[in-house]
Amino acid sequence: MQKVIKHLIQKNDSKIIFTVLDGLGGLPVNDKTELEAATTPNLDALAKVSACGLHMPVGYGITPGSGPGHLGIFGYNPLEYQIGRGILEALGLGLEVRKTDICVRCNYATIKDGLITDRRAGRIPTDHNRRITAMLSEHIKQIDGVEIIFAAGMEHRIAIIMRFPDPLEPGAADIEDTDPQQEGKAPLAPKPNNKSAGKVAALAAKLLEKAGQVLKNEGRANFLLMRGFSNMPHIPTFEEAFGLKALAIATYPMYRGLAKLVGMDTPVLEGTVEDQINFLKSKYNEYDFFFLHVKKVDSYGEDGNFGGKADRISEFDLLLPRLQELNPDVLIITGDHSTPALMKGHSWHPVPVMLKSPYVYGGLCSVFSERECTKGELGILPAINLMPLALANALRLKKFGA
Amino acid sequence: MQKVIKHLIQKNDSKIIFTVLDGLGGLPVNDKTELEAATTPNLDALAKVSACGLHMPVGYGITPGSGPGHLGIFGYNPLEYQIGRGILEALGLGLEVRKTDICVRCNYATIKDGLITDRRAGRIPTDHNRRITAMLSEHIKQIDGVEIIFAAGMEHRIAIIMRFPDPLEPGAADIEDTDPQQEGKAPLAPKPNNKSAGKVAALAAKLLEKAGQVLKNEGRANFLLMRGFSNMPHIPTFEEAFGLKALAIATYPMYRGLAKLVGMDTPVLEGTVEDQINFLKSKYNEYDFFFLHVKKVDSYGEDGNFGGKADRISEFDLLLPRLQELNPDVLIITGDHSTPALMKGHSWHPVPVMLKSPYVYGGLCSVFSERECTKGELGILPAINLMPLALANALRLKKFGA
Repeated sequence: MQKVIKHLIQKNDSKIIFTVLDGLGGLPVNDKTELEAATTPNLDALAKVSACGLHMPVGYGITPGSGPGHLGIFGYNPLEYQIGRGILEALGLGLEVRKTDICVRCNYATIKDGLITDRRAGRIPTDHNRRITAMLSEHIKQIDGVEIIFAAGMEHRIAIIMRFPDPLEPGAADIEDTDPQQEGKAPLAPKPNNKSAGKVAALAAKLLEKAGQVLKNEGRANFLLMRGFSNMPHIPTFEEAFGLKALAIATYPMYRGLAKLVGMDTPVLEGTVEDQINFLKSKYNEYDFFFLHVKKVDSYGEDGNFGGKADRISEFDLLLPRLQELNPDVLIITGDHSTPALMKGHSWHPVPVMLKSPYVYGGLCSVFSERECTKGELGILPAINLMPLALANALRLKKFGA
Repeated sequence: MQKVIKHLIQKNDSKIIFTVLDGLGGLPVNDKTELEAATTPNLDALAKVSACGLHMPVGYGITPGSGPGHLGIFGYNPLEYQIGRGILEALGLGLEVRKTDICVRCNYATIKDGLITDRRAGRIPTDHNRRITAMLSEHIKQIDGVEIIFAAGMEHRIAIIMRFPDPLEPGAADIEDTDPQQEGKAPLAPKPNNKSAGKVAALAAKLLEKAGQVLKNEGRANFLLMRGFSNMPHIPTFEEAFGLKALAIATYPMYRGLAKLVGMDTPVLEGTVEDQINFLKSKYNEYDFFFLHVKKVDSYGEDGNFGGKADRISEFDLLLPRLQELNPDVLIITGDHSTPALMKGHSWHPVPVMLKSPYVYGGLCSVFSERECTKGELGILPAINLMPLALANALRLKKFGA
C-alpha cells in the first residue's frame, strides 16, 4: 500500500499538524480513564466536529515500544521496519545516528579472574558512569580508522557508536551479544553471524580489549558487556514516502531521533509545551508537516500517577486553541500508544485519535475519550493508515486508477 | 481469501440483487450529507432491518477511480487487478474488449515539420473528431492480419484497439507512451519494455505511419499521440470465482464494460432507472446475480450539485419497493465510491452499505446514512468482502473446515 501511496502523491500548500500526546490512551480507575477524568473542553469541542476513532499501533494485543509506536503513526509498518535496541539507546541519549554507524548498548560489569561477578556493576550511580564514560571517550577516539563514540546512560548503561567511514553491507550488525546473561561465566566474544558482520565483530573485540585496559582499575565497573548490535534500517524519508517537508517539535532526544530516522528536521529544543507550540508557530511557513510531541503524558502514566497524567492532558487542552488559531488544513490529535496509569507502563490498547479537516462527517462523538472514539467515523484502524488519511484530507493524494 | 471462497462455493436457487448508486457517499453541507438530505423513507425502513456498515473501496485515504471502485465491490482486489487506461477508455466508449486486444487511448495532435505544436489539436469539436475517426476506420481496417478498431471520444480523444488473432504473452502491452508530454518536441516512437511487447510496438509504429498518411491534410488534427497501452488483465469470471450467472443492468458503456471484464452478461440498455428495474424483473428467472448500476447520483456529485445528487437518491428511494417486491434472498444497496458534491469529484471516504437477508441482526441504524452506518453490524470493511458476505447470506458458501 505504501508503494501505491507514493505514486499518488501530489504537492500543494497545505499544512498538517500531527500532535502526539505520548502514551495518551488509558484505562478506567473509578470508572473514568485519565482522558475522561481530565478537564478537556477544547478537545471535546474539537471531537464533536472531527473524524474520531482509535488506532491500533501494531496489532491486537501487541504492546508497542516507543520505536514501533512512532513508526506506525508515521505511516511505516512497524513489523517491516524494526529498529534495533542499540539504535534506540543511542537515539534516547541524544546521539545522532548515521547510515554508516553500528550502535550497541552496553552494561558496565564487574569481572574477576576472567569471570563476570556482577552483570550490572552493582548498578553504579549515574555520576560514576559519567566519569568513567568520559575516560573512555578520552582514551578511545578511534580504532583502525573507525570513530568510536561513547554516551553515558542511567546507572550502568552506556551506548557506543562505531562510526565507519563507508556504508556497511546489509547484515553487518548481525552479531551476537557478548553478555552471557548469567554471572559466574566468562563474557562471550562478539560472534558475527555472517561474513559482512565479521569486520565489525573484529573491531568490537578490539574495542572491548581497549576498554578493559582503560577500566582495569575502576573497581566494580571494570568491563563492558555488549548487547543489541544494530544499524540504521533503510527507511524511506517523509519526503520520499509522502512528499512532505517535515519538522519534529520534540524536547526528548529519543523522539527527535525517531523523527530523524524518517528524515524530519529535528532541532534541539527545551522548554514547556507552550514553548513547543510557539516554536511551531515560528516555523509554520517553512514546513508542510509538523510532528508535535508531548512527552509528559506518558511519563506520569509510567509512574502510575493517574492524576498527574490527567493533569498533563488538561494542560494540553488549554493550549489546543493556540494550534487551532493556525487553522491548519489537517489537525490530528492522538498518541503513539496507550500508557494506562493502572498498568504503570505501555499497553496494547488502541489509541484515541481525531482528525479535523473540511472533509469529515463529525457529529458522532460528544467528547474526546477512548469510549466515545469507538463511535467515531474512523472506527478502529491500523496506525499506519493515519498518514494516508492525513494526506488525503490535505488533498495531497491523486485518484487511484481511472 | 478469494481462493478459499472459491472452494466453498455451492450453488442454489437464491437471487442476489446488488444495487450500486454510483458515487453514493457524500459529505455534510449545512451539517447534512446528500444521503441525509434526501427523502428516503424506503431506504431508511430497509436500513432498520438490514446489516449496515461502510465499505472501504481500496484503502484508507485512497480515492478510487471507477475501475478500482467496481472491481472492489465485485470482490476482486483492486491492487492486484489493475485495469489499464487504454482499456477503460475503450470500455467507456462502448467498445468490447477481448483477451487478444491491445487498447490505447490517443489524442489527435498537431504536428509541423516533425514537431508537435498542439498536443490536443486545439481540442477539436467532437463532430470533427467523429468525421476524421470515420476516415481512419475506412482506410485502416487491418495491418499485417491484426484488426484495427477506432472509436471517437470527446473533443480530441480517440480509443484504438489492435485485435490480434491469437492470445498475447503477458507484458505485451508494456509499451511507453508516444506523447512526449510537451509541445515543441517530436512524437516518440512506441518503445517496448520487453520482448513480447516488441511486435505490438512495431505494429503500433506502422499504424501511426498509416494514420499520419490518412490525416495529413486534416489541418490541426494531423497526427496521433498514443498513451496507456493496455490489455485485459486475467480476471476470473463471476462464474469461476463465485459460481454466479450474473447480469449487469447498466446504461453507461463504461460500467457495462467493467461488468463484462468479470464475465457478466451486459446487454445494451437505455432509459430511466425505472426502465432498468423493469428490465431486471423481465430477466429475474434467468440469472443468479443482478448488478443494477444507477449512474446519475455520481454525475450530480461530480458537478458539485448537492441538491441534484440528493434528488437522484430520493428518486431511487421511490423505486426501491419495486426491487423489494421481488423478495430477493439478498438485497444490497451501496455505491462504488464516494462523490461528495462538496468536493466535486470522487473521494476516499468509505461508502454506506446495507445488506438485507433473513440472516442479519438489524435494529442498529435508524436511517440509511454515512453516519448511521458507522453504528451498523458490518462496521467499516474492505469492499472486497461484500461479495463473500452476499454469497454467505444467499447460503451459497459451505462451511470451512470440519
